[in-house]
Amino acid sequence: MAEFPRLSDNEVFWAFTTYATIVLLKMMLMSTITSFFRLTRKAFSNPEDALSSGKGENAKKYLRTDEKVERVRRAHLNDIENIIPFFCIGLLYSLSAPDLSTALWHFRIFVATRIYHSIAYLTPLPQPNRGLSWMIGFIVTFSMAYRLLKNKLYL
Amino acid sequence: MAEFPRLSDNEVFWAFTTYATIVLLKMMLMSTITSFFRLTRKAFSNPEDALSSGKGENAKKYLRTDEKVERVRRAHLNDIENIIPFFCIGLLYSLSAPDLSTALWHFRIFVATRIYHSIAYLTPLPQPNRGLSWMIGFIVTFSMAYRLLKNKLYL
Amino acid sequence: MAEFPRLSDNEVFWAFTTYATIVLLKMMLMSTITSFFRLTRKAFSNPEDALSSGKGENAKKYLRTDEKVERVRRAHLNDIENIIPFFCIGLLYSLSAPDLSTALWHFRIFVATRIYHSIAYLTPLPQPNRGLSWMIGFIVTFSMAYRLLKNKLYL
Repeated sequence: MAEFPRLSDNEVFWAFTTYATIVLLKMMLMSTITSFFRLTRKAFSNPEDALSSGKGENAKKYLRTDEKVERVRRAHLNDIENIIPFFCIGLLYSLSAPDLSTALWHFRIFVATRIYHSIAYLTPLPQPNRGLSWMIGFIVTFSMAYRLLKNKLYL
Repeated sequence: MAEFPRLSDNEVFWAFTTYATIVLLKMMLMSTITSFFRLTRKAFSNPEDALSSGKGENAKKYLRTDEKVERVRRAHLNDIENIIPFFCIGLLYSLSAPDLSTALWHFRIFVATRIYHSIAYLTPLPQPNRGLSWMIGFIVTFSMAYRLLKNKLYL
Repeated sequence: MAEFPRLSDNEVFWAFTTYATIVLLKMMLMSTITSFFRLTRKAFSNPEDALSSGKGENAKKYLRTDEKVERVRRAHLNDIENIIPFFCIGLLYSLSAPDLSTALWHFRIFVATRIYHSIAYLTPLPQPNRGLSWMIGFIVTFSMAYRLLKNKLYL
């Protein structure tokens, strides 16, 4: 493991900042896509939201699930299940003085596979498009965790 | 971008620590509210939990969904979808040497809108109370992400 | 509060890195267990996934929920609701120069209770095995948050 740079000189940390911010913004985009489909397809979970599309008894029929909305919500939950562990492990990895070019390829591949995963989920593309993009992202995070534990096990 | 302070002198980082901890505790509170409503309204997801309210066949009728429990769970999930990206992006932003007073206002507004969001969700208050508080919190996180990428793009 | 060590000399931070990585890997394992049960029990959420188990009309019957799959998903969501706040608060706590042995016990107890929680959820063990392990983990995270706010309140 190389010597530890100051945070302000730590290129891996700044690369991580850029890639993590991009993939977190992509995750936040899922919230707005869910809202868009809820409003355009009139499918709400809360009575107070359904009132935007109709009054009284008429509003109740909009308290329903819609397959397109549920699909976006599943994609969003999958993002949470994968992007948040990437952030947590990637942050610790960035601070453990890894090799810059190795780190960059971890970040780049992860961000690319998660963007492809969202496209594959929302289109939807036939399997194994979504399955493979999920798996590659998973392996990237696992690889960073493995390098962390190999270099810096402190129990 | 200003010079980088040492972490122990980094006022933005300590302000972030305080506000992030407060809003994370608020999020954790949702777990206890869910448990409270599950127990008092006898609505469980797991057979082994329903046994606390009745034995044998009698327990099965408590394996049900309850609208109040589901509402708390939706509020909790919305917290996860919004507070975790705030934490991730806010942490990176705090370490990028931003202006202290700009950073403080980002943190204060976010924490206030998320507390208001929970009140609006659980009461429930009529829309657009909940929708607006969600949107303002979303914009705060987006604003920090924008400042990060504008100042420190490293691809 | 003690003096602040450089990150590379910060033993608490490296202990946190090890324990957090282990518990995050445990959380990621839930994704693979969900996939395993979806494939072996043929219970899918997406039509494009069900096609792996049958063609045309035959595939539709695999678009169903399965109690074992739902149980793993609830355990996974509970992990997200508890392990992510532990990571966020624990990271800030690790950087606030706490006492090493106090910090180590927080990390060790949390990781042990979450591993036990997963075993109790998936077996399933009778209550209060799962409830108690959840509660102890919750108290550990709360204790770190309390120490942070007591030492470093910056509003």
